[in-house]
Amino acid sequence: MDVLVPFDARTPKTRLSPSLDAAERHDFAVAMLRDVLATVRAGGHDPSVLATETVDCDAPVAVADRPLTPTVNDALDARSRPVAVVMADLPLVSADALERLFAPEAPVVLAPGVGGGTNALVVRTDDFHVDFHGVSVRDHRRIAGRSGISVDMVDSYRLAMDVDEPSDLAEVLLHGDGHAASWLREAGFQVDATEGRVRVHRIEDSTPEQG
Amino acid sequence: MDVLVPFDARTPKTRLSPSLDAAERHDFAVAMLRDVLATVRAGGHDPSVLATETVDCDAPVAVADRPLTPTVNDALDARSRPVAVVMADLPLVSADALERLFAPEAPVVLAPGVGGGTNALVVRTDDFHVDFHGVSVRDHRRIAGRSGISVDMVDSYRLAMDVDEPSDLAEVLLHGDGHAASWLREAGFQVDATEGRVRVHRIEDSTPEQG
Repeated sequence: MDVLVPFDARTPKTRLSPSLDAAERHDFAVAMLRDVLATVRAGGHDPSVLATETVDCDAPVAVADRPLTPTVNDALDARSRPVAVVMADLPLVSADALERLFAPEAPVVLAPGVGGGTNALVVRTDDFHVDFHGVSVRDHRRIAGRSGISVDMVDSYRLAMDVDEPSDLAEVLLHGDGHAASWLREAGFQVDATEGRVRVHRIEDSTPEQG
Repeated sequence: MDVLVPFDARTPKTRLSPSLDAAERHDFAVAMLRDVLATVRAGGHDPSVLATETVDCDAPVAVADRPLTPTVNDALDARSRPVAVVMADLPLVSADALERLFAPEAPVVLAPGVGGGTNALVVRTDDFHVDFHGVSVRDHRRIAGRSGISVDMVDSYRLAMDVDEPSDLAEVLLHGDGHAASWLREAGFQVDATEGRVRVHRIEDSTPEQG
């Protein structure tokens, strides 16, 4: 499968600013990207990165400093079908989850994200475009519906769990075993089991080397 | 499959108190329970409820006002294998997700919840007990590991998404089609697409009839 991986290399993961400074957010975002690329390759698929500026990673990188939606739509226009889009902030993604994403034969397959986003999709038709603004999983179903295109949904926690907010870091520590989980551990983050859902805390003066 | 569904009928869903008053939390919790029971039955399985006090629902109810962990462990002791436990606050659970939970032949199968919990499990061995206190998905892996019991993990957003906090209500509105989603809509909740993940807002003076 031809797998496009959009990546904001300029100001990634701003909502993690309560937990990570700008340089750390960049390094952590690259660690997550590397996890996604490694998993795509492990499944025998071909990742290529659509980035806002150059980034050092194990895949071809096309650079265009534009918003996510036109970047992905232009890339979809330029590719043959089927083509997949997998977000770069899914450090828990597994080869099995990708297989379940790629398996259905529906013209459009969506993997919802926690919080209304669309974390991955497969497109087998020319009559579909993306719109990542707003509640994109709902918008993508509507876009498909208006063209009479049937949609399959993939039920995966590992695809649903994009890392946007500090509380999401706990999921990476609990269920991750790649670059992103290692980066967090080296940066001093630990799972904090208090009341309700787990959170993370950070040991003081744990600053990983800038990469 | 013999499916145990624990239910706190006394003070359910206290972390939803910013959004729902006590009577509403009870009614909403019962709506979620009904969704879970209907889905278990739709898959041809046999649910039974372990509740802290009586609750009106379409399944046998065993009442014992004890904490979750001993309640489930006593029930596991009393049942033949295999036996499953599915939490009552999973209104998005689907028959497909349950089939994927029940399919593996591993002695223990776990469905992680967002935030470190264990939202569902299947037990095929006598040498396992539950402990829902703390980061239970990690604890359950450790409990199994100490007895040399292999564990399968099920990768399902619909099983992972337990409804504990106000932001979780958006997931129910976006992806639910059962009693819980209907209850929220009748109570005036709507998806609110602002920055970042979606949240919900409530229309003033929307108070559903107390059930």
